[in-house]
Amino acid sequence: MPDDMARPLIHDRVEAGGSRHLEASMSDSPVIGIMGTGDFSRSLARRLVSSGYQVVVGSRNPKHSEAFFPEEAEVTSQVEAASQAALVFLAVYPEHHSTLLELKPSLAGKTLVDVSNGLRINHDGPSNAEQLADMFPESDVVKGFNTISAWALQRGPRDASRQIFLCSNSSTAKSSVTQLCRRMGFVPVDMGLLSSSLEIENLPLSLFPSWRIPILCTLFLFILFYLYNFLRDVLQPYVTAGKSVFYKMPIDTVNVTLPSVALVMLALVYLPGLCAAFFQLWSGTKYNRFPNWLDRWLACRKQFGLCSFLCAALHAIYSLSLPMRKSARFKLLLAVRQMKEGDEVWVEEEVWRMELYVSAGIMALGLLSLLAVTSLPSVADSVNWREFTFIQSTVGYCALSMATVHTLLYGWDRAFDPVQYRFMLPPTFMLVLVLPCVALLGRLALCVPSVARRLQRIRRGWEKTRHIRFRLPEDNCRNILDDVSNV
Amino acid sequence: MPDDMARPLIHDRVEAGGSRHLEASMSDSPVIGIMGTGDFSRSLARRLVSSGYQVVVGSRNPKHSEAFFPEEAEVTSQVEAASQAALVFLAVYPEHHSTLLELKPSLAGKTLVDVSNGLRINHDGPSNAEQLADMFPESDVVKGFNTISAWALQRGPRDASRQIFLCSNSSTAKSSVTQLCRRMGFVPVDMGLLSSSLEIENLPLSLFPSWRIPILCTLFLFILFYLYNFLRDVLQPYVTAGKSVFYKMPIDTVNVTLPSVALVMLALVYLPGLCAAFFQLWSGTKYNRFPNWLDRWLACRKQFGLCSFLCAALHAIYSLSLPMRKSARFKLLLAVRQMKEGDEVWVEEEVWRMELYVSAGIMALGLLSLLAVTSLPSVADSVNWREFTFIQSTVGYCALSMATVHTLLYGWDRAFDPVQYRFMLPPTFMLVLVLPCVALLGRLALCVPSVARRLQRIRRGWEKTRHIRFRLPEDNCRNILDDVSNV
Amino acid sequence: MPDDMARPLIHDRVEAGGSRHLEASMSDSPVIGIMGTGDFSRSLARRLVSSGYQVVVGSRNPKHSEAFFPEEAEVTSQVEAASQAALVFLAVYPEHHSTLLELKPSLAGKTLVDVSNGLRINHDGPSNAEQLADMFPESDVVKGFNTISAWALQRGPRDASRQIFLCSNSSTAKSSVTQLCRRMGFVPVDMGLLSSSLEIENLPLSLFPSWRIPILCTLFLFILFYLYNFLRDVLQPYVTAGKSVFYKMPIDTVNVTLPSVALVMLALVYLPGLCAAFFQLWSGTKYNRFPNWLDRWLACRKQFGLCSFLCAALHAIYSLSLPMRKSARFKLLLAVRQMKEGDEVWVEEEVWRMELYVSAGIMALGLLSLLAVTSLPSVADSVNWREFTFIQSTVGYCALSMATVHTLLYGWDRAFDPVQYRFMLPPTFMLVLVLPCVALLGRLALCVPSVARRLQRIRRGWEKTRHIRFRLPEDNCRNILDDVSNV
Repeated sequence: MPDDMARPLIHDRVEAGGSRHLEASMSDSPVIGIMGTGDFSRSLARRLVSSGYQVVVGSRNPKHSEAFFPEEAEVTSQVEAASQAALVFLAVYPEHHSTLLELKPSLAGKTLVDVSNGLRINHDGPSNAEQLADMFPESDVVKGFNTISAWALQRGPRDASRQIFLCSNSSTAKSSVTQLCRRMGFVPVDMGLLSSSLEIENLPLSLFPSWRIPILCTLFLFILFYLYNFLRDVLQPYVTAGKSVFYKMPIDTVNVTLPSVALVMLALVYLPGLCAAFFQLWSGTKYNRFPNWLDRWLACRKQFGLCSFLCAALHAIYSLSLPMRKSARFKLLLAVRQMKEGDEVWVEEEVWRMELYVSAGIMALGLLSLLAVTSLPSVADSVNWREFTFIQSTVGYCALSMATVHTLLYGWDRAFDPVQYRFMLPPTFMLVLVLPCVALLGRLALCVPSVARRLQRIRRGWEKTRHIRFRLPEDNCRNILDDVSNV
Repeated sequence: MPDDMARPLIHDRVEAGGSRHLEASMSDSPVIGIMGTGDFSRSLARRLVSSGYQVVVGSRNPKHSEAFFPEEAEVTSQVEAASQAALVFLAVYPEHHSTLLELKPSLAGKTLVDVSNGLRINHDGPSNAEQLADMFPESDVVKGFNTISAWALQRGPRDASRQIFLCSNSSTAKSSVTQLCRRMGFVPVDMGLLSSSLEIENLPLSLFPSWRIPILCTLFLFILFYLYNFLRDVLQPYVTAGKSVFYKMPIDTVNVTLPSVALVMLALVYLPGLCAAFFQLWSGTKYNRFPNWLDRWLACRKQFGLCSFLCAALHAIYSLSLPMRKSARFKLLLAVRQMKEGDEVWVEEEVWRMELYVSAGIMALGLLSLLAVTSLPSVADSVNWREFTFIQSTVGYCALSMATVHTLLYGWDRAFDPVQYRFMLPPTFMLVLVLPCVALLGRLALCVPSVARRLQRIRRGWEKTRHIRFRLPEDNCRNILDDVSNV
Repeated sequence: MPDDMARPLIHDRVEAGGSRHLEASMSDSPVIGIMGTGDFSRSLARRLVSSGYQVVVGSRNPKHSEAFFPEEAEVTSQVEAASQAALVFLAVYPEHHSTLLELKPSLAGKTLVDVSNGLRINHDGPSNAEQLADMFPESDVVKGFNTISAWALQRGPRDASRQIFLCSNSSTAKSSVTQLCRRMGFVPVDMGLLSSSLEIENLPLSLFPSWRIPILCTLFLFILFYLYNFLRDVLQPYVTAGKSVFYKMPIDTVNVTLPSVALVMLALVYLPGLCAAFFQLWSGTKYNRFPNWLDRWLACRKQFGLCSFLCAALHAIYSLSLPMRKSARFKLLLAVRQMKEGDEVWVEEEVWRMELYVSAGIMALGLLSLLAVTSLPSVADSVNWREFTFIQSTVGYCALSMATVHTLLYGWDRAFDPVQYRFMLPPTFMLVLVLPCVALLGRLALCVPSVARRLQRIRRGWEKTRHIRFRLPEDNCRNILDDVSNV
């Protein structure tokens, strides 16, 4: 698909025009070198010039390349460029870094900015920047700018805050690049030592890594429940009574499956937190590391929640579309035809059941929407920690309870109706309710005063073992004094 | 509820590993002291080390605490730490600040950063930081970092812009902490003098303070209208005709109540602005302070609007769910049974009324959605002042007008139908329409050319009294010159 | 409409109170001058004082003005103020800049910050700031602060990141204003030389410039399709059979029009990208400039997409509201009355058609919602380039395909039914399907391996002509080396 990056980066000489007379005032500004003459190099040169820097571009063929750069930039040989600048951007493919080895003497003692990206995610290292640092041990290598596209560079910083992740083993080199970033209008983010460069190089290559497990989980649950419902609602009538209700496959069956997935996923948002609490209660300290699976689970609760919300919202739209379908109309006409004079048309229990479960469903959806809106980055940034916890925990448990009530009301007394056990399979809602009920009961258990008190003590830093070992008055005092002062 | 903060802050020695050889290059970086050894202190130390600072931690029991800190940090006695560092974080509970008094000589002339939080909101002062400043009059106290959790500190600054609010009476101390913030990857926000510290300490403790009035108002209106509708629609048929329609309580009654609340709340968004305009017209200047209630009302218009939108959206979902209910189906079957041969089935007026009011309702909801989306922080940030005003005012009044039209069309000619006055109570829509009509008429009044002109003059700084008193040509000139240059 | 800006900026002496004793510590902070005493000037003074600066305000009538400024600010004559400060804000109307000419000697060599705005958009220049620079050739003019309202200045920087756009021909003057911005809590954005000042002055005056074409396009399509549908669905039955179905105008006709607009607009999102790709294939290079219309079209794809989403969402609500209308109820009752004993009530084909197209429609809406959420600034900022492209391109084409399938299923075999050709006009869906099918076929064409390969080569910088002319091994090497290193 053609994207922004694929568009040519136009040389807009007008924009920079008429500034020749400024050269005098700019001659005292630092000189920045750029090696390479590709798109990124051109955009970078343009931006640096417009931020008031003197730019010198190193090219293997300066005459040919000159036309692609703003006229304020000097395009010269690589050796010339390297010797003039104290800070040099290397905008060449990492596989061609070695061709720069001949510049080693002129780059010694200078700051090299490695803007390169890998072709695929690299978990083992070494990173491009680390390899470069090995090649040029006498230069200070800074990793950065690889997450910014040439297009964003050229378009300028108006487009909200564009972060630039930087790392280096030399703090002076890093701080000079940091200043440069700021002057160009970007927001530098210090990622520490050069060992972080691998992570920085992987950043632009990853494709929703935190969403992989939640999406797979949603798909798995969807397929599972869909097959189960297909078996019970479509296949069973066909096999046992020869009734063909295959028309239910696109909407009705999907609409029973979606809320099941939504509710189970919502329970999966709150279960890991409960596991963590019980783990801490059991181990009597908060300084024991959680098992890996729990850590990973805890980290993707937000994504689980949003998948749950998506399913719930789709369920709402599917449900609302039910009465407008031809099948609903035809069923009604059939009902009218089969209606006899003495029939009781109004079934009070049916009416109440539906009024109540529709109500509960709408309220659950409303609460889930609040949660979803609060997880938007800009909204989450504008609330404080206490507010965020209130929404995500208190409102979240309300949503879970309401969704559970919605399902219980939908079930009503059908759990005790043998007709519902088609093929001996229990109704879907019974399977669905297991995890939410476990989560709600677990949460209730943590509200028992003695448990709650113990948990709170553990979370303020109290440890079962330490508590027993060092029961000296002096240490006790230290214990209080040194504890977390920030909750 | 178990939250992120409750998780142990794991000592990940690998992350910082292999950097021993950097010490030489880091020895020239400033030394930062930290008093206290709790979670916050540990996370802070880790972050400072990874940002290239030398860290010295003051502990009452250095040997025991050492294990919790990165190995690049020096853990020593409190006196030792205080004497080495020029900038000292006090990460101890505020109630233990006094235990630091023995360090007074070694802290003199140094910058102390108070990261403490209160336990509950404190409106009267003095703040922890002010008390600390009184305790250490020879040190420069900076308040800050209290809004950042230990977890956010450890996880790093990747998570969008994390603001740190700072205040101090010493501008040099504040600027050094500001630099430190930036180097750690946070966004420092200068809040002025130490007298702001009370506000900064209250920040993480408040729970949606700006939402309290709007939510209470919504709840109050909801209960009021719900009872009114219950009386008219459920109780009246039961009392007068013995008809039991209690099944209407969960959905039908709620669905008449929600739009009432939504419309009244929407009118309440625009009324304070009108009050302000008429107040300015009346007092003939914009430099008279508004009454307090008006100031507070003006400040929470956005929240009123969002509450209104929530009610409107729920109303839409409730309305759309009406035909899928059993009760709708049963009513239809009853209608079919009671339908006689000669009956006119198609009532043109009824059809037109409903087509029109549904239409108007959908359009009002669409406009309200635009308003709601524009009030998201990130969207509001990306529009300029003129665009924001256009959306919030022009589009807003369109939404209010459309919602009023929706209600008027819903009412149709029922206001003149005595049957609608059950228990002598007028239909709900009549009560609801009062405030929106006042708002719309008030807005129209401000469009009268002479009024509009006068208001505009007042808002450009013209004052009735001043105008009369100083009618000298010279002053007139000054008057124009000195006025707001920025609209 | 009364807005925030129209409120008086209250002099809150309490806030700044009690800080007299700080003057000693502040005396070493820089002195900032402000010319003019309007609202903006007052707010600026207040903010500068609270950020720790010494402020001196130049007024033509210092005695009268003093009362409006914080007591820490010195209000004096303009000459006095100009001579004291090294950095002077000019907060007077641009038409009164000339009155400052008498201060020329005392302003020489100083930095002047022009905060003025124009009254209307100015495309031709010169800007206010450029005129000022001509007036004061010996001062360094910096343009900025014009996008910030007096209200935002006074309220402080808590409200997320408020950007300040700066430009100047003097980099030292610009960097000192940049520092000032940061210390006041704003985010300075360097826009380059003073020639950008025209753009900066136009910023607060523009009203959704990027939305004009998409909204006009949406309106045009809406009117076109509405008239077409009115002709076919309402006028034709009236003219040919005398049947009055004018009640369809508010909802039914709109609900056929909206999805048409939505689908055409969605196709218009993807067509310019395809045009660009074919243009590049045809010209054999990516360094040829696109025609102007294509450039402008490419730039507003996001807005086209959001307009499409709005129409699609409204279409969903309109569709869901269909069965709750009186007209639907009356039609059903009519159908019941006309139903005869032998009639086949259940039409399997009708049922399947509707189940399928409703399904496809809901899925298309779901995918469009994902696209819409991802285009929120804060969400777009938090995904990397690869993720953004995946969503906007892959998910986008899925949505387009699904919406096309929805329309095809809606059409079913009606395209071949002569009854549908009322007034000889083809059914709407046939007209609507043209552009989406072109877009999908164009996209498929780009997937043909040889085409895809050629396009990819072009986008990595390969050029047809250059490739032929310079086929020297040396140049080939340079070609690889100098190409974009950042994709």
